[in-house]
Amino acid sequence: MLSKNEVKYIQSLCHKKQRNETGLFIAEGPKLAEEILVSNYIVEKIYALPEWIKKNNNINAAEITEKELNQISQLQTPNEILLIVKQSSVDFEPILKNNFTVVLDDIQDPGNLGTIIRLCDWFGVQQIICSNNTVELYNSKVIQSTMGSFVNVKICYKNLIDFFNSNKNIVVLGAVLNGINVHEVAKPKEAILLIGNEGKGISNDLLPFINKKITIPKKGKAESLNAAMATGILLSHLT
Amino acid sequence: MLSKNEVKYIQSLCHKKQRNETGLFIAEGPKLAEEILVSNYIVEKIYALPEWIKKNNNINAAEITEKELNQISQLQTPNEILLIVKQSSVDFEPILKNNFTVVLDDIQDPGNLGTIIRLCDWFGVQQIICSNNTVELYNSKVIQSTMGSFVNVKICYKNLIDFFNSNKNIVVLGAVLNGINVHEVAKPKEAILLIGNEGKGISNDLLPFINKKITIPKKGKAESLNAAMATGILLSHLT
Repeated sequence: MLSKNEVKYIQSLCHKKQRNETGLFIAEGPKLAEEILVSNYIVEKIYALPEWIKKNNNINAAEITEKELNQISQLQTPNEILLIVKQSSVDFEPILKNNFTVVLDDIQDPGNLGTIIRLCDWFGVQQIICSNNTVELYNSKVIQSTMGSFVNVKICYKNLIDFFNSNKNIVVLGAVLNGINVHEVAKPKEAILLIGNEGKGISNDLLPFINKKITIPKKGKAESLNAAMATGILLSHLT
Repeated sequence: MLSKNEVKYIQSLCHKKQRNETGLFIAEGPKLAEEILVSNYIVEKIYALPEWIKKNNNINAAEITEKELNQISQLQTPNEILLIVKQSSVDFEPILKNNFTVVLDDIQDPGNLGTIIRLCDWFGVQQIICSNNTVELYNSKVIQSTMGSFVNVKICYKNLIDFFNSNKNIVVLGAVLNGINVHEVAKPKEAILLIGNEGKGISNDLLPFINKKITIPKKGKAESLNAAMATGILLSHLT
């Protein structure tokens, strides 16, 4: 049985401050559990319903009731298992040479960041560089919407002006509304794809670093595409 | 001021049964209002905050308070204006000749249907045929996530087996996990793109109607792409 303090402690991990202080985050559901358990992530604790434990009896988990899972889960529909996992570093030096890299300028919506991570995993993009104001990777909505792909893609946070200033030898493709038709851009061997904020697009400060502005041609009337959707379509053409 | 009965009546339109009986639906926010007001849709009633009315003083709207908008809105963050709109028919004969048509087999998630409508509008696809079990167009989550694009795309609901049986002369491209690389498929002048359910894919009953199975090639490890994302990427290659 979970103590009141344990419940409070797990619930507190929905706050960024608490995640930062403890260096932990929450992941839920059998699919994410499966991905995390075979990854390099260190699992601190597993809470699971009897049915999950029965199917995974080689894994050490604390058995809880459905009522207890409802108390600690951050999902609308709790799903068998909740893991408390150690964060890995989001500060490393990406290898840009011979690589395709995605750079995100202030993506705010957790679902969008999670979807972009899943897309990068699908298209074999192995690293994402986020501006410091991009939504936090360990936000549980981000983690859940990656569908587990965060274990396969390296993600770091940086001051993007400093980053672009120190990496002027790599071609930067910027996703904008009035650039070259992406169908006419050759697949690059190495490049950076820069994606802007959902509402404001790419910051003015970063525009001078773009070598080629690219666009998904519009044939109908819709005003825009969602940032994650645009990323997916561009990756499909460029990778 | 809104009467209790009026509030109840508007709230009741969040239920499909009530929408069917009245033939009405709800749309919210200035962006959707703008699209609907210049479209063929007939607006039954507009409820708006004073700031919206000030900016649009040529339009006849009932002024309500923020508190009242909170009561009738179906959004987490109500946004200035709520419209009650007459549904248009979702039963018509699509023109397949010289057209690119999207057919949806039991898409369940309202956000996915809305996103697919927005994508079709972006890529100039003018008609979508939904299976009878696809989520209802006038569900307010669908309407909101189209970002207004539902006014530009014709959408009908049909028994898909009957539909395919009567239209055997049009090429059907089916989105599957083990088909031809979509990069190798020529842009068709006329075709149907068939998209399956989020979890189950394309129904077994419909597989025999597919002329060409197509796939978005995977280079990384992610297990799948979201149905709306896959539709967007395929449309970008095929239209």
